[in-house]
Amino acid sequence: MARIVMKFGGTSMAGIERIRNVASRVKREREAGNEVLVVVSAMAGETDRLVQLCREASALSDPKEYDVVVASGEQVTAGLLAMTLQGMGLKARSFMGWQLVRSVGAHGNSRIEAIERELLDEALHGGTVAVIPGFQGVSEDGRVTTLGRGGSDTSAVGIAAGVGADRCDIYTDVDGVYTTDPRIVPRARKLDFITFEEMLELAGVGAKVLQTRSVGLAMRENLPLRVLSAFEDLPGTEVVAELGADMERNTIAGIATDRNEAKITLTRLADRAGVVGAVLGPLAEAGIAIDMIVQAASREGAESDITFTVPTASLHQAMAVIETRKADIGYDEMLFDPNVAKVSIVGVGIRSNPALAATMFKALAEARINLIAVSASEIKVSALMTEDQMETAVRVLHTAFGLDSRPDEKAAGAAA
Amino acid sequence: MARIVMKFGGTSMAGIERIRNVASRVKREREAGNEVLVVVSAMAGETDRLVQLCREASALSDPKEYDVVVASGEQVTAGLLAMTLQGMGLKARSFMGWQLVRSVGAHGNSRIEAIERELLDEALHGGTVAVIPGFQGVSEDGRVTTLGRGGSDTSAVGIAAGVGADRCDIYTDVDGVYTTDPRIVPRARKLDFITFEEMLELAGVGAKVLQTRSVGLAMRENLPLRVLSAFEDLPGTEVVAELGADMERNTIAGIATDRNEAKITLTRLADRAGVVGAVLGPLAEAGIAIDMIVQAASREGAESDITFTVPTASLHQAMAVIETRKADIGYDEMLFDPNVAKVSIVGVGIRSNPALAATMFKALAEARINLIAVSASEIKVSALMTEDQMETAVRVLHTAFGLDSRPDEKAAGAAA
Repeated sequence: MARIVMKFGGTSMAGIERIRNVASRVKREREAGNEVLVVVSAMAGETDRLVQLCREASALSDPKEYDVVVASGEQVTAGLLAMTLQGMGLKARSFMGWQLVRSVGAHGNSRIEAIERELLDEALHGGTVAVIPGFQGVSEDGRVTTLGRGGSDTSAVGIAAGVGADRCDIYTDVDGVYTTDPRIVPRARKLDFITFEEMLELAGVGAKVLQTRSVGLAMRENLPLRVLSAFEDLPGTEVVAELGADMERNTIAGIATDRNEAKITLTRLADRAGVVGAVLGPLAEAGIAIDMIVQAASREGAESDITFTVPTASLHQAMAVIETRKADIGYDEMLFDPNVAKVSIVGVGIRSNPALAATMFKALAEARINLIAVSASEIKVSALMTEDQMETAVRVLHTAFGLDSRPDEKAAGAAA
Repeated sequence: MARIVMKFGGTSMAGIERIRNVASRVKREREAGNEVLVVVSAMAGETDRLVQLCREASALSDPKEYDVVVASGEQVTAGLLAMTLQGMGLKARSFMGWQLVRSVGAHGNSRIEAIERELLDEALHGGTVAVIPGFQGVSEDGRVTTLGRGGSDTSAVGIAAGVGADRCDIYTDVDGVYTTDPRIVPRARKLDFITFEEMLELAGVGAKVLQTRSVGLAMRENLPLRVLSAFEDLPGTEVVAELGADMERNTIAGIATDRNEAKITLTRLADRAGVVGAVLGPLAEAGIAIDMIVQAASREGAESDITFTVPTASLHQAMAVIETRKADIGYDEMLFDPNVAKVSIVGVGIRSNPALAATMFKALAEARINLIAVSASEIKVSALMTEDQMETAVRVLHTAFGLDSRPDEKAAGAAA
């Protein structure tokens, strides 16, 4: 017997027919002898409807009241699922966020602090399925809070950790985590296994399969996750701390893309100690994260250009900050370009296997893709390029690393 | 400075534009220096939508889960109104039913036990408008409860009593309480004042202006109510314990109708002591309320017929109960007729003024209306007739008691 959390997203809960499908899956786990907690999202579209009502009510809506309004969507689906399970002969009851989930931090974007597990343990020991609205909790002063958009994943993982669950299954409208965005590479392959760290790096690829915060939380709690289709019986992707011997692969996990960076270049900086700090210090103070940096000597030798990337949303703020420090930094020109993209190969052990980086740069060079900057971490090598070259880069890398699925593979998977 | 509760129904809360209108009325009361609590219904149609979802989810939906689902509608409007008030520059916050309203009794039909007034007092003393979802509370074991359909009126009165409010204003889509159903008598007149007891008797007339339970509660708490239009600036109707000298009228308050009774006649009962008890005892045991009773000697003299009314919804059950006791009771035939109606004149002091009853019977006789049964109480005289005679009876009585408004009166009222 295992204790498991099953999480279902808005598409899976959109209407009574789909809620019945969810109930059938819950019933199967229960009949396999598991203790089951279910975390549910609001019906697809409902949270958007409620957010829109808040916007219409007041341009500057109070986050405390916003939380009261938008938290109602999951309350409805939790009650409906509990009823549906009862109708199928299971013991089930709903719990409200305020009964279970103590949270801290700003309204509209709270963090789970603790789970009141006594009520849940009692229900589970009695064979009752616990149905819990995702995305919400209660503040120290007893007010309804929400965890931010997509927060139901975080609820599921936080509740799983809080009740000592053996695993957390995230049911969604895709059937797992893919090697890359299938819209760019139609032959992208579903991964059977992926590590938490790889998952965090691949989270930006295509459809947001899992909220990043929930993956980080599961990693810290060492809680195994599975990403599964809510609609088809497929094995999905297991997200684990380390790849076991049976999960080995001799290539990367996948290829991540990121269009949300912009490039800033400052020309002809004095080549003196501390000049990089003079640029980056004020940006850090302003809360602007810098990702890639490259410093290149200019023709004269005593001066150099510096190029770095910031989130596109922060580009104008970053430029304003630098402008005010121009005298202090001492550059000639500030150039910028929002039309850049970052392509990364992601996989455990990348740094310890230089052949992988070599394969990457060879493939990109053969495709005549100019690299603006390069960076590397324990599990990732990234290359910055102009945005119009991104899709080509992803495709050649996908092929070079042997990730393309065989034409018959997806069909075989669907039949399993 | 007064402490007042303002209650707004679903029609008044249907959409952001109408919520803004509600907020304007709240603002006016606040700016007059009053401490204000607002009790809100769900948007018109929303509770029906949620109830329908529950029905689809499970034919036998668990009342505890039903409550979780349907209580969400008022949660949304409470948050939206609090935001809107803030947007107009007022201090406001929403409270949830589970934070304030302790309830007892069956889920789906709970009663208010107590109001946690500390939180409310604190808010009101600080100049904050308290916005509270109607229709709901929390059970002793911490689960969401609802008070039954129309329960927002009861919430408003219960909360007003619990916080020692000076009065409770019920804003609705009619502009007050009328002398009778305006669909039957277009010249029905709005009453400026009515007593609680009269209001209880007139509750059945036409649109249910106020939930009966809420009127009974206000009467016990001696809490003045006002029924007002949410859309027009009209004086409405004040519901009070006793008519003051300035509220005197020399006629009845109004005319009530009731189509929801059915008539049962048992023929040729032995004219012996205890025969009425033999009929009514088993019905009382079965929980069936009997209203009017008339016993009439039959031609032979040693036997009599007995006729009484039961709620139409209980007619078949009542007949089944009597059928099983036929030998015991000893009647010849059981006849029944669901097509009867009760017309009542209502007003304080009716019993002490026999001229009123005389006026009633004279008017009905002149209109050739046959009375099946008659009953009287302190504030009411009722006549049972066939349903097809009901509307005529109401019209002649309305004229006979001088209740018809002058042709120009409604226009004058609207301009006030």
